[in-house]
Amino acid sequence: MTDYFRSNVDAMASYVPGEQPPRGTNIIKLNSNENPYPPSPKATAVLRNIDGEWLRRYPQPFGEEFRQATSKVLGVPSDWIIVGNGSDELLSVVIRACAEPGRKVVYPMPTYVLYRTLAEMQAADIIEINYGEDYSLPIKELFAANGSVTFIASPNSPSGHVVPKKDLQKLASKLSGILVIDEAYVDFAEENALALVKEHENVIVIRTLSKGYSLAGLRLGFGVANPKLLDGLFKVKDSYNIDAIACAVGTAAITDQDYKNACVAKIKASRAKLATDLKQLGFKIWDSQTNFLLAQPPQKNAEYLYQKLKEQGILIRYFKQPGLEDKLRITIGTDEQNQTLVEALVYLLGTGE
Amino acid sequence: MTDYFRSNVDAMASYVPGEQPPRGTNIIKLNSNENPYPPSPKATAVLRNIDGEWLRRYPQPFGEEFRQATSKVLGVPSDWIIVGNGSDELLSVVIRACAEPGRKVVYPMPTYVLYRTLAEMQAADIIEINYGEDYSLPIKELFAANGSVTFIASPNSPSGHVVPKKDLQKLASKLSGILVIDEAYVDFAEENALALVKEHENVIVIRTLSKGYSLAGLRLGFGVANPKLLDGLFKVKDSYNIDAIACAVGTAAITDQDYKNACVAKIKASRAKLATDLKQLGFKIWDSQTNFLLAQPPQKNAEYLYQKLKEQGILIRYFKQPGLEDKLRITIGTDEQNQTLVEALVYLLGTGE
Repeated sequence: MTDYFRSNVDAMASYVPGEQPPRGTNIIKLNSNENPYPPSPKATAVLRNIDGEWLRRYPQPFGEEFRQATSKVLGVPSDWIIVGNGSDELLSVVIRACAEPGRKVVYPMPTYVLYRTLAEMQAADIIEINYGEDYSLPIKELFAANGSVTFIASPNSPSGHVVPKKDLQKLASKLSGILVIDEAYVDFAEENALALVKEHENVIVIRTLSKGYSLAGLRLGFGVANPKLLDGLFKVKDSYNIDAIACAVGTAAITDQDYKNACVAKIKASRAKLATDLKQLGFKIWDSQTNFLLAQPPQKNAEYLYQKLKEQGILIRYFKQPGLEDKLRITIGTDEQNQTLVEALVYLLGTGE
Repeated sequence: MTDYFRSNVDAMASYVPGEQPPRGTNIIKLNSNENPYPPSPKATAVLRNIDGEWLRRYPQPFGEEFRQATSKVLGVPSDWIIVGNGSDELLSVVIRACAEPGRKVVYPMPTYVLYRTLAEMQAADIIEINYGEDYSLPIKELFAANGSVTFIASPNSPSGHVVPKKDLQKLASKLSGILVIDEAYVDFAEENALALVKEHENVIVIRTLSKGYSLAGLRLGFGVANPKLLDGLFKVKDSYNIDAIACAVGTAAITDQDYKNACVAKIKASRAKLATDLKQLGFKIWDSQTNFLLAQPPQKNAEYLYQKLKEQGILIRYFKQPGLEDKLRITIGTDEQNQTLVEALVYLLGTGE
């Protein structure tokens, strides 16, 4: 079969999706950074109003209704917004518009593994630069690498840290390529970089409704950038990439800021409590501005704990990667779920297995 | 801005989506080959059962529920099925997996304009081969062109003709690259090429729920091919390309074959009537196995008629392309809509404007 595909596609590993146990399975699922609370009732209520006429016709090519709502919430003009089938699609669109053999895709490590997958797909030159121990941004190295696309996740996964806006600003002003600031977790953070798009036409801020808005199943994300930058990206996206239902449900969800803020407040409180509990068990915990914690177990037996918890029906995330083999990424669940996790860990650490 | 994007993206024209007047506009919309009837009530009923838990979590990465249902309907194993965010996404996935500079993308003309757009995006070598006057497949030329990807829409748009299965079979057995048989309009045809995927591992048949199933707004399509071929395509698709709602609604829709078949029967009857009416007005009409007609006005003033009808709130499709400037593509509407169109044409032709 090798002749059918481009050589870099042949060389790529098949993507292995995260564990997604079927609905109804009795699992505590803290592995994909899903929000433990349901989306806004106003968002699900929209589903009751969708009729056949809505579905019979092609949707708005640019998700106009959602753009208008997002424009109001963020205070940016609607033509500065691109809507995607999840923020993953927008990351893919940026790569497809800008990356190719001989062009560099650059990002600090560790970070979202999809950046590498997307860059491999385009056969781009990949430059990975390690974060320091304190997760300070390696600005000089990133600038020197001179990427056609530079990805910065802020807050970052799996570290949970926010990259200071002033660092992003420095980077944006120095780079000649596009700076993608991936703010998937921004709803749980104290700082964001949205203002940079007004000052720097090479910056796109990408967000999602999967995390703060509890709509991972809906696949809806958006990017904010200068319309001059968006023009190139619109050429690459599928004509009708946003379905009519996602557009309507997402519009209701992003409009209901009060509900989202209330969920986020609960998750932040749970995050603080879980961090305290894990520290008491001897875990090293990194400060998190996300809905997950990066946690290093006292005996550094991360893979063992991951496996044992899985056997007990508690899914967390383990990355077998340099710098991460001794750590776990734990999504913030409800207080009850987090308590069950802590009790399981007390037992596993206590048995000294 | 030119340095940000790949040079072939810079060189591409911005995609201009078809005219999609807002919902509630009093327009007779016969320009996008949408189904005039609503989707199955069983499909829209699914929306009443979707709760927050369904949306909070990531969807099935491969649209498993829809694959299972489609497997039963088509009688192919579920692992021979790839699900896409509309069949457009699957066309894009094939191109991204197989096409690049130095590799050829080949298709007969005229056909779906997206093939060219997608090939331009990948900077592939594009070879367009004209259909003959009778729309017979130029097999020798297609074989000689030796594409890494060969696209055949069957039924084809805007001609409405089906490419005979034996011609597709010849082509499949001779090509060393992938043969994409785009069966978007197959529900309105008397013949299909699905069986070819069992005999030829280089064939993928791509279908959509946008036409026969009245779900253009949902964005759901699928491809059927040997799992060995799908392996390469799965690497390229977005991890969670199918949202949870589309998967559930699409499953109900494809399972309700009776409803789809009843709609299709109505449309075929309306197609016959509209063809007769237009012929009586002096139009040349090509035989159609789709939900549209290719029609050449007696005075060949296609663009004029398109514009005049638009002024009256009737949208049909006009392609300013070689071989199509004197023709119109008219979606089959309800009998009432078609009658309104015919009356408008009687007036326009009669005035001799």
